[in-house]
Amino acid sequence: MVEYIPSDHFSSRRVDTGRITLNVREAGDGPLMLFFHGITSNSAVFAPLMAQLSNRFTTVAVDQRGHGLSDKPESGYDANDYAEDIAGLIRTLDRGRAILVGHSLGARNSVTTAAKYPDLVRSVIAIDFTPYIETEVFDALEARVNAGNQIFEDIQAVEAYLAGRYPNIPASAIRVRAESGYRAADGGLRPLASPEAMAQTAKGLRSDLVPAYQEVTRPVLIVRGEASKLVSAAALAKTSRLRPDLPVVVVPGADHYVNEVSPEITLKAITNFIDA
Amino acid sequence: MVEYIPSDHFSSRRVDTGRITLNVREAGDGPLMLFFHGITSNSAVFAPLMAQLSNRFTTVAVDQRGHGLSDKPESGYDANDYAEDIAGLIRTLDRGRAILVGHSLGARNSVTTAAKYPDLVRSVIAIDFTPYIETEVFDALEARVNAGNQIFEDIQAVEAYLAGRYPNIPASAIRVRAESGYRAADGGLRPLASPEAMAQTAKGLRSDLVPAYQEVTRPVLIVRGEASKLVSAAALAKTSRLRPDLPVVVVPGADHYVNEVSPEITLKAITNFIDA
Repeated sequence: MVEYIPSDHFSSRRVDTGRITLNVREAGDGPLMLFFHGITSNSAVFAPLMAQLSNRFTTVAVDQRGHGLSDKPESGYDANDYAEDIAGLIRTLDRGRAILVGHSLGARNSVTTAAKYPDLVRSVIAIDFTPYIETEVFDALEARVNAGNQIFEDIQAVEAYLAGRYPNIPASAIRVRAESGYRAADGGLRPLASPEAMAQTAKGLRSDLVPAYQEVTRPVLIVRGEASKLVSAAALAKTSRLRPDLPVVVVPGADHYVNEVSPEITLKAITNFIDA
Repeated sequence: MVEYIPSDHFSSRRVDTGRITLNVREAGDGPLMLFFHGITSNSAVFAPLMAQLSNRFTTVAVDQRGHGLSDKPESGYDANDYAEDIAGLIRTLDRGRAILVGHSLGARNSVTTAAKYPDLVRSVIAIDFTPYIETEVFDALEARVNAGNQIFEDIQAVEAYLAGRYPNIPASAIRVRAESGYRAADGGLRPLASPEAMAQTAKGLRSDLVPAYQEVTRPVLIVRGEASKLVSAAALAKTSRLRPDLPVVVVPGADHYVNEVSPEITLKAITNFIDA
């Protein structure tokens, strides 16, 4: 049995989609807006955005497979596996087409879902993940992800580790990650995310995203952190050549972790897109 | 009495807003979408977009003051004059908030209107006009505009002139401009747009657009032609610094005349924004 430290006041529940059971945090009412986190993270990171958007939307942040308190099958961590989970969740929630807000892994999964199931998706806000990410960037990401599989003495040790790994994320958001992403085990704290799932997911991020971007017919807003080390300016430029009709927001000063580093601009970018 | 050559099959009428009478071309039904042309141009240039959008929207392309078959007062060609016309037209049409699609002068006027009257505007697609346009760019524009005040022997002479002035606009769109923008006079063809109004309008384009961009709360999509000589890459970058939350589309291969040079990408950019 997994123990965990609750990190926010949003109601949390597990949703059985028939295919997998996913843990979600939810708040609000209105059109359905789903949030999908990056690799090793979980649904709690979207609390600041949900707090601002739940007065107008049914906001549902999802622990994706292998992460948080959701199911962690031994295998099945490719883009298609994640996308099928999202499609199943939208069908299970049965509140019509969903707006998908995804960061990194979540962005990849959201665009993949929109390309495959346009009838389930209203639009996508794809934060800092595009096609054409360079091999050496994936190498560095994979090393970082696998290095996260540690046992920490206490929550302060977790925060210190996370602060070093994410130097631009404010302390309050680091605390959310620390409090929501670890479980007591073996006399210390271990990541809630399954190390095996993370390793497979990191490998799966390398698969070609060009076909999904070519195929997607639903509106996609591409958001990039100006200082992102994951999506280079060159990768974004090539993506815009591929799909010049997709609007782009570049967030000044933000690195890869756009929604945690610059929540206000992220919020305004989302509403400018959705309210147009 | 003005004679003119009809250029398309959209129904055309003059709308008295109380403040001014404007000529509009209109088609379709649904949410209100207004189109505003660039300096010296007229509403006919939006026919290709209207043909694609009028199955979902009430599309209304407007001859702005001083242009086309609309009223041409002797003075009053600043941003505020144009914006008041737009506000008056939206009120007169009485079909709720309008989506404003503006090119160049029309983009300036649309953003100005949205900043001043957020309750009348749903969103803006601002094509190739931003703050921070350089003085020498306005100098060149003003010279070009004033050089257009000529008498032409026949429609072929008009087309030859326009093809030289707009080298990237396809022949079919040049023909639309030629057939819709001139009137028989003095044994030849003269621009429908008032030369005095054009001179004043060109001067007025120089006024500071930063306050309107700072103030506007409605969603604005910024569209730039990648090869635009009007909006430089530097002007766009400064605009994005001012309002990093506003999404941007850069159209490859297009110059300033984005919607005439690249109507398909313009159309997709509009619908991606509106349908999100």
